[in-house]
Amino acid sequence: MSSSGTAPAYRRLTVDQRRSQLISTALRLFAHNPPEDVSLDDVAAEAGVSRPLVYRYFPGGKQQLYEAALRSAADELEQCFAEEQTGPLTSRLTRALDRYLAFVDEHDAGFMALLQGGSVVQTSRTHAIVDEVRRAAADQILVHLGFRTEDSRSEPGGADDLPADPPPPGRQAGPRLRMTVSTWITVVEAASLIWLDEDKQPPVDELRDWLLDHFVALLMASATRDAETAGIVRHALDLEERDGPVGELARRMLPVVTDKAHLL
Amino acid sequence: MSSSGTAPAYRRLTVDQRRSQLISTALRLFAHNPPEDVSLDDVAAEAGVSRPLVYRYFPGGKQQLYEAALRSAADELEQCFAEEQTGPLTSRLTRALDRYLAFVDEHDAGFMALLQGGSVVQTSRTHAIVDEVRRAAADQILVHLGFRTEDSRSEPGGADDLPADPPPPGRQAGPRLRMTVSTWITVVEAASLIWLDEDKQPPVDELRDWLLDHFVALLMASATRDAETAGIVRHALDLEERDGPVGELARRMLPVVTDKAHLL
Repeated sequence: MSSSGTAPAYRRLTVDQRRSQLISTALRLFAHNPPEDVSLDDVAAEAGVSRPLVYRYFPGGKQQLYEAALRSAADELEQCFAEEQTGPLTSRLTRALDRYLAFVDEHDAGFMALLQGGSVVQTSRTHAIVDEVRRAAADQILVHLGFRTEDSRSEPGGADDLPADPPPPGRQAGPRLRMTVSTWITVVEAASLIWLDEDKQPPVDELRDWLLDHFVALLMASATRDAETAGIVRHALDLEERDGPVGELARRMLPVVTDKAHLL
Repeated sequence: MSSSGTAPAYRRLTVDQRRSQLISTALRLFAHNPPEDVSLDDVAAEAGVSRPLVYRYFPGGKQQLYEAALRSAADELEQCFAEEQTGPLTSRLTRALDRYLAFVDEHDAGFMALLQGGSVVQTSRTHAIVDEVRRAAADQILVHLGFRTEDSRSEPGGADDLPADPPPPGRQAGPRLRMTVSTWITVVEAASLIWLDEDKQPPVDELRDWLLDHFVALLMASATRDAETAGIVRHALDLEERDGPVGELARRMLPVVTDKAHLL
């Protein structure tokens, strides 16, 4: 991030530096303001450069700058779910969710404007970028569940990162499991939007724990109808610890179902 | 629906009949084609009337007609979750989901175009209509959980429909429970989109059962962290039957968690 405002105009930057300065300035403005309230003049002023200079880098104007800023935010978001493939699954997801929710917190207004739609700068291209982030997040989670994604399939040596059992190395996830994971990605997005709308209540740690519970719950429910998911879940549960999120969830569940033996 | 195509032009209809004929014709076209592929000429031809006649009813042209068609679809969707407040909650939700998924099946292309965004006819007004449907669906579910919504609050006598216990009549749902219900609405939407994208696989009954399982799972998980939700869940479980969806889910869960006593 540049120390904008106080920076002298036309600091000597390389083309790449200038370009990324303009993108990060735009991203900061788009993060905290609805797109219709951000003008090219605002970006120029904030970056300490002239409007024609901005146009030289982004001849497509505000739309092109918005898309470049979105692209840069998308790259950052896609990194949220990149995580060492060791330890209990819920520990990995906890760290990933912490990064994701920090991003949401940091880019609140832009995140809402983007996902709630109806904004002037949204096109099929911006929607494609958002969809790509969703797909990348789902792929990362499937990798943590021990699957290869279509992308990782073509990378030689990628199989080294995969646990030995189950699923067998190189197998791709079936439709039910993919649907469960994609659904949870949507849950995370929807809950993030509601959280922003409710002035960031409850505290972010509670939101993260709640999302983690929902991941476990969705996966467990899907496991009851899908043999593949059941195998994955049983394997993942072996790695969980008694004091981890799954153990705590299971123990907190007991009083809720006490006296409900008529259902068994 | 008019018997369009074979109908003679300018059948004698009242103003209201003509208006609703044009809306239902537009809805049918928008349901099965991306909005950019539907022209006012298509609607006129399909309805067996002239283009100027369509403009007389919808001076705002295609955008106005799209919004009227969407409004009409939204009214239909909002009715999906209206259901007698008797019997197990999952039986009521099963019927509501069957109606909702039949709607999705019937309006496939339009449903996708609307919710995937990026279409030329989408504005803050069309987004507001979609949000209203989501809110109405969430409110209906909260009513089935025994709560009053802000709308029903002002209706005298509305309390007669509510179960005697818990929650106490007239209470509104707290933020956690509202977030859980809104989240599930998003799950239903997202799963419907994935289902359409996967050429309507799995069969719709399986999708409905899976969504129902997820409703139970999300509610159970939230119950472990929220006393209000726990009370609601315990009450709802009392009304569930052994051979109903919750009983079946519980019994199918047992083999998944066998040998996982290290977590308790």
